[in-house]
Amino acid sequence: MDNKIHQINKIAVVGTGVIGNGWIARFLAQGFDVIAFDPAEGAEQRTQKAIDQAWPSLVKIGLADGAAQNRLTFMPTIEEAVCEADLIQENVPEREDLKKSVLASIDAYAKPEAIIGSSTSGIMPSTLQEGLKHPERLIVAHPFNPVYILPLVELVAGKETSAAVMDRAKNFYASIEMKPLIIRKEIEGHLADRLMEALWREALHLVNDGVATTEEVDAAIIYGAGLRWAQMGPFLTFHLAGGEKGMRHMLEQFGPTLKLPWTKLEAPELTDELKEKVITGCETHAGDTTIAEMEEKRNAFLVELLDLVESYWPETTATEKVVVKQ
Amino acid sequence: MDNKIHQINKIAVVGTGVIGNGWIARFLAQGFDVIAFDPAEGAEQRTQKAIDQAWPSLVKIGLADGAAQNRLTFMPTIEEAVCEADLIQENVPEREDLKKSVLASIDAYAKPEAIIGSSTSGIMPSTLQEGLKHPERLIVAHPFNPVYILPLVELVAGKETSAAVMDRAKNFYASIEMKPLIIRKEIEGHLADRLMEALWREALHLVNDGVATTEEVDAAIIYGAGLRWAQMGPFLTFHLAGGEKGMRHMLEQFGPTLKLPWTKLEAPELTDELKEKVITGCETHAGDTTIAEMEEKRNAFLVELLDLVESYWPETTATEKVVVKQ
Repeated sequence: MDNKIHQINKIAVVGTGVIGNGWIARFLAQGFDVIAFDPAEGAEQRTQKAIDQAWPSLVKIGLADGAAQNRLTFMPTIEEAVCEADLIQENVPEREDLKKSVLASIDAYAKPEAIIGSSTSGIMPSTLQEGLKHPERLIVAHPFNPVYILPLVELVAGKETSAAVMDRAKNFYASIEMKPLIIRKEIEGHLADRLMEALWREALHLVNDGVATTEEVDAAIIYGAGLRWAQMGPFLTFHLAGGEKGMRHMLEQFGPTLKLPWTKLEAPELTDELKEKVITGCETHAGDTTIAEMEEKRNAFLVELLDLVESYWPETTATEKVVVKQ
Repeated sequence: MDNKIHQINKIAVVGTGVIGNGWIARFLAQGFDVIAFDPAEGAEQRTQKAIDQAWPSLVKIGLADGAAQNRLTFMPTIEEAVCEADLIQENVPEREDLKKSVLASIDAYAKPEAIIGSSTSGIMPSTLQEGLKHPERLIVAHPFNPVYILPLVELVAGKETSAAVMDRAKNFYASIEMKPLIIRKEIEGHLADRLMEALWREALHLVNDGVATTEEVDAAIIYGAGLRWAQMGPFLTFHLAGGEKGMRHMLEQFGPTLKLPWTKLEAPELTDELKEKVITGCETHAGDTTIAEMEEKRNAFLVELLDLVESYWPETTATEKVVVKQ
């Protein structure tokens, strides 16, 4: 009902860096009118260049009816950019003070029912909605680069965000071929970036300690975990690595390694409660599919994925170099 | 030269759990005679089942001339299993005391020039080679599940490992369609598992803190970072996320977030030296390829990968459920 009343037709994009431009390309490809604002010199030219770069992929993915690059308009002021928009996507640099002041102007000029989605990768929505006239329509809608291809978007509600707005946002982002993931609790870094950041920090430690070069770290991920993560993420991956008994066996076998100094990251206490959360989580996720059935599917997938990786990146790894060098 | 003298024809696999069986399947598919030993009851039947499960994928990948399941023989004693082997792959449970005693027997019965590769995911080779008669032929050769498909194998030398053995091992694992990654420094967890473990620990914290379910964590990886990691790993991924200036810009922009409480993992100090290591590492890796060229290639790859993921895992994510539930 609510969705019918507040159709999203016009979208404003405030801040046109790599992420803002990624949003613009996706919105245009999905057949929307997009109004953009960015005070930086040459912003419009950079955006056009970014769209040109993205368009071939978007054509391959499939354009919506009426999708056209010329449905983008840059406005000279933030007021003109947002005043008629049904959804405003904010992508200014990751500084709390800057984001808050820009969001305050957006809030001042936007229609009250317009949704404001912040692309912040780390700041909590409750912080961003402080002092807004209409805080209930502010959410975090955090995408992943390249925004015009990767489907994940994390949706986070702040203390004052209304359920109706979250629901409209979820439906909207799902309607533009994205996978909206609703985050249950506000935390800095949300969900995906916390996971990425943990790996990223350990990677920096390893490079810093001279254990590996950046290229070797990349190779260690590409040809091992990366292939599996693209497929089923860390939990189901371990569920399958556990053999017939799945995650239950996995935790028995590798639970103890949590105590070892394997990373610079301190592990949580593997309490029975946590164990059950993890085990039942995987078992629920797996549903009626047996481990053997999942393995079959995983294998078929990995064989194809491996072909794909090899066809695109045959020469760019540390391991290749190792073999060539000898 | 050395390689000619010590051809690897016969392989022994000691310990036939998920990893040991994965090795057996790969070795058989590569056309080797494999001798296996595992004292556990029903081990031989479980191994046959595992091979049956793996074989269709191996056929798809392509069997070597003469590859046959019946070239596997189980032996009743470890002595009979290893005495004629040119390479022995050890895969007993991840307990230092157990591994050391099994490796001592292997060392006692194996030909002096035979290579002993331990599949240990965390123990350092210098620890494992303590007290061996021929410590110079002991290396860590750590694979990833499913071993018969994933190409990555981490090779780690211990203090007493000879360069000739490492060289033979590297050539051997490369010859069976693997990507041998030589780890520069011995550390617990080697390289890949440290990275995986960092993400795994953060994931456990997030589930423990009620931020996400295991399925939501998986979705957060699959549709975001996972797709990128399968392609180019964390460093080159960020190099591209940095726009035209690549990693240099990335570190300027997101370096500060290292100070934020984004994970439970403490970040390293982002010194100029570390910055340079990371930046030049990425730039060297990228070589003459421009960011724009890499983006084009990345996009084409991601579009295909996304199709692949969708065709295999259309319904198994938290995000799908979110959309369906409403």
